[in-house]
Amino acid sequence: MKVQAKIFVTLKGSVLDPQGVAVTKALHAMKYEQVEDVRVGKYLEVVFDVENDSQAHELVAKMCDQLLTNPVIEKYTYELVEVLA
Amino acid sequence: MKVQAKIFVTLKGSVLDPQGVAVTKALHAMKYEQVEDVRVGKYLEVVFDVENDSQAHELVAKMCDQLLTNPVIEKYTYELVEVLA
Repeated sequence: MKVQAKIFVTLKGSVLDPQGVAVTKALHAMKYEQVEDVRVGKYLEVVFDVENDSQAHELVAKMCDQLLTNPVIEKYTYELVEVLA
Repeated sequence: MKVQAKIFVTLKGSVLDPQGVAVTKALHAMKYEQVEDVRVGKYLEVVFDVENDSQAHELVAKMCDQLLTNPVIEKYTYELVEVLA
């Protein structure tokens, strides 16, 4: 089965997010003063072939730990959808 | 009401994604040969104060068009959740 994983990577809550601070300041300068906080992360769409659901979950976890995220400062969540032919 | 917008920004389908190509190659080099395609985008969490839902949708659309995305090459989707006190 062909699966698309939508992976959302964000900095852990305790880690300072300078890019988010910069975006917040830019929005304030543009008079969007109602904005309180911005956090910037990564969004990845990965398409792969696996036999079943549990293989898909395992593969995503391994790829995230080994390449796609930095487990020291980042956390991630993901959704899996089956890509139909 | 306090609202958190989760905004997913991706390159339009017809736009080459060199970062995604690089990640695909890196995964292949690490023996994840079942990976077919990777697209890399941005994920933003923006917290702001508005009066109602329609103001929230309007605000997100304006911020995305003016600062958070490049409408020429990127598209975005978003979800809104109310942040309870």
